[in-house]
Amino acid sequence: MKYCSDCGSEVSLQIPEGDSRERHVCGECGTIHYINPRIIAGTLPVFDDKILLCRRAIEPRKGFWTLPAGFMENGETTEQAAARETVEEAQAKLNIHGLYTVFNLPHISQVYLFYRGDVVNGEYGIGQESLEVELFAEEDIPWKELAFPTIYQTLKFYFEDRKRNEFPVRVEDITAFQRRS
Amino acid sequence: MKYCSDCGSEVSLQIPEGDSRERHVCGECGTIHYINPRIIAGTLPVFDDKILLCRRAIEPRKGFWTLPAGFMENGETTEQAAARETVEEAQAKLNIHGLYTVFNLPHISQVYLFYRGDVVNGEYGIGQESLEVELFAEEDIPWKELAFPTIYQTLKFYFEDRKRNEFPVRVEDITAFQRRS
Repeated sequence: MKYCSDCGSEVSLQIPEGDSRERHVCGECGTIHYINPRIIAGTLPVFDDKILLCRRAIEPRKGFWTLPAGFMENGETTEQAAARETVEEAQAKLNIHGLYTVFNLPHISQVYLFYRGDVVNGEYGIGQESLEVELFAEEDIPWKELAFPTIYQTLKFYFEDRKRNEFPVRVEDITAFQRRS
Repeated sequence: MKYCSDCGSEVSLQIPEGDSRERHVCGECGTIHYINPRIIAGTLPVFDDKILLCRRAIEPRKGFWTLPAGFMENGETTEQAAARETVEEAQAKLNIHGLYTVFNLPHISQVYLFYRGDVVNGEYGIGQESLEVELFAEEDIPWKELAFPTIYQTLKFYFEDRKRNEFPVRVEDITAFQRRS
């Protein structure tokens, strides 16, 4: 950020009075511009004991498999955002059962939330941001070709929890170190 | 948003190619500026079966009682944000037990997350943004003087769940209509 989005003048990094962090402050109109973490909402779509995965048509991680997920928009709930992304990427409507995983990724200032849901009538298709969309049984999950650690971890939790048919909300931090490994 | 924070030129509302929503797009450098929901992280601090509440020294809802909570910053986890706000507003360190409530407030594009925790050694004080900080037994909670519906609802859930000593994560949407009522 170099310029004030309110008045177009130059901003500089300063610690505002009563604050403890550097913010972008406008030299002209005094507006303080806060930069906040972003929320990514997604789903774990299930049908017939299989999981719906999408092969990404876009960067980052083009060609790798993901659960439907994307940036939450203003004016929607996390569940609405998750359902919208599932329609956009996998052309699938879900009966959503509830929040399932929450991931903090502080090194990139993101928070992921995944909801569990059943694919209505088992119907799905290939959305604009996907190359392929397929249902995978547990033994066929492409573990080495998953796009993100949040996807890997959500699937791991699910197959564990499915044994007991109990799905408590799981909260986990994923650090830069884990991401590389 | 009127000006591009990258180059200082004027922005206009347009639907970028491949998108379905209006965004602020720079007429000069083409940068698309996304505006995203914000996360508020807080805690439900418990000591000796009492709840620690703060009376707000700042607007909005100055003079009303709240749980410690505030905007999550870049580079931290939701739990770290919740703990930091508790130190800032109530000068209390917590042993955090886990995520407890998640609220969607789509009419103001906010997502609240509250963590349960015990106040270490029962020590607390009055932070900069607070007028008073006090422990309240269930029968003394100032229900009519709570600052926000998220605070009311988190306390309601807690006193219910405490009867069974089970605290599953609770997810709820709070709409503009509920807020007014």
